[in-house]
Amino acid sequence: MRLARCARHGGAPFWGVVDLEHGEVSPILGLFTDWAPRVTAGEGISALKLAHRPVPLADVVLLPPIDPVNRVVVAGANYTKHLKEDFGLEAPSQPVAFLKAYGALIGANDSIRFPPLTDELDHEVELVAVIGRNEVDPQDPLASVLGYTVGNDVSARDLQRSGPKGIGMDLFAAKSQDRTTGVGPWIVTRDEFPAGSPRLRLTLSVNGELRQDGHTSDMTWDVGELVAFVAARSSFACGDILFTGSPAGVGMGTGKFLKSGDVVEATVEGIGTLRNVVSEKYS
Amino acid sequence: MRLARCARHGGAPFWGVVDLEHGEVSPILGLFTDWAPRVTAGEGISALKLAHRPVPLADVVLLPPIDPVNRVVVAGANYTKHLKEDFGLEAPSQPVAFLKAYGALIGANDSIRFPPLTDELDHEVELVAVIGRNEVDPQDPLASVLGYTVGNDVSARDLQRSGPKGIGMDLFAAKSQDRTTGVGPWIVTRDEFPAGSPRLRLTLSVNGELRQDGHTSDMTWDVGELVAFVAARSSFACGDILFTGSPAGVGMGTGKFLKSGDVVEATVEGIGTLRNVVSEKYS
Repeated sequence: MRLARCARHGGAPFWGVVDLEHGEVSPILGLFTDWAPRVTAGEGISALKLAHRPVPLADVVLLPPIDPVNRVVVAGANYTKHLKEDFGLEAPSQPVAFLKAYGALIGANDSIRFPPLTDELDHEVELVAVIGRNEVDPQDPLASVLGYTVGNDVSARDLQRSGPKGIGMDLFAAKSQDRTTGVGPWIVTRDEFPAGSPRLRLTLSVNGELRQDGHTSDMTWDVGELVAFVAARSSFACGDILFTGSPAGVGMGTGKFLKSGDVVEATVEGIGTLRNVVSEKYS
Repeated sequence: MRLARCARHGGAPFWGVVDLEHGEVSPILGLFTDWAPRVTAGEGISALKLAHRPVPLADVVLLPPIDPVNRVVVAGANYTKHLKEDFGLEAPSQPVAFLKAYGALIGANDSIRFPPLTDELDHEVELVAVIGRNEVDPQDPLASVLGYTVGNDVSARDLQRSGPKGIGMDLFAAKSQDRTTGVGPWIVTRDEFPAGSPRLRLTLSVNGELRQDGHTSDMTWDVGELVAFVAARSSFACGDILFTGSPAGVGMGTGKFLKSGDVVEATVEGIGTLRNVVSEKYS
């Protein structure tokens, strides 16, 4: 099942079930926090009360599939090749997690805002897990995952390096810039994948040129391990999302940073594609 | 004017105007985002519609003065002596900012949860600015400040050091632990202070022993500079709060970390005191 958060042009956001075959989305009645735990528990579409009339998919804008009260956690340093080739770093002994501002998010077809402070805007395709209940069982962390979506953790590398010596990377300045991080187009529920952490190809292209081509089986820590790692440090709430790291091939390693007008397509196999165009640089 | 977010035991949170003389709080009608910009603009109490009946202050719990949809930004490395004496670090050339999870917050009289993963729980008294409108004018950032409150940015130092080499301090694990960070007891509006960045003494005691005794005039960057620094990287929204750094004297420097049962009192002159007792260690 595909769950999207969307809005008719100018209208209030709503959650819906996407039917790609018929090009429709059926609005879900009730609060996310009421129905998401039931879907997460495996009840499927029977957990949902749907509006009688579906809306044409063409009439809605796809929003980031996360409500504003929820938080965005990024677990980085999870693909050894990315760390070594792109940053010259050794593989760490544990993941690193941090928070991204909600205001950094954009939907699947929005433009990526080119922030004024950076000259090194970069891309990072990632598998994103969506948490569907308030409790995480450390013995079975995947049972708290509602489903998966696609993220592009757009990063300002020059700002990332601007952090004070002894404190470290400035991940806030690098990764919380307004309207830079694509996420969507929808959540594909966990029951659509084989049991366990998803094993999926991730790719990212810029103007049609393949820049990142990785696989979630190359993660150092799988989705369940990351969920448990984060939850031990700061509890999740139903609706929070977790970025799970990016494979090699980003501009930090190749020197090919994003430019205004670039068409950036981030894809995770079996989920979908974000297609975001980089805006003019803001002044 | 003192603005508190509070709840009767078991009831829904509400904002109110605190009258210390009469020991009462008058509930404010309407949404924070409707009235806060008007108070921030200097309209004072005339911007507020109050309930006819005040509530005895003794009948409410003081909650963190921030709604769950808002975010918590921490701007650290802002007191040179704290950096040098407590961490052995040089003064940086710019502030460092990061996000704290909302779930880390507790109110003025709640207990500090002792998280299971740390043996080095530490205190940090801070002046906290509350943003009262969505826009920040880089030429006059203080005009966006609704008022000030007190924070105790409780930190797990061993986890702070656990960040991967080359990436830096793990500020998420150190500072976003559930229910550790005191904030409150209320917001004192900006018009109660002389123009400019507030010049106030900050103190923190543990079991009556003074551990931190600093002054906001020792900040490297004043409140306006910090607000502008953060806003240039990630926009504020009305209701967001900004921690502005802590003076010297924390356990990281002295070796005196917090223990279960410790009574921790954090005070900012002219605002108020947080009094939080450290819980038993969670397992």
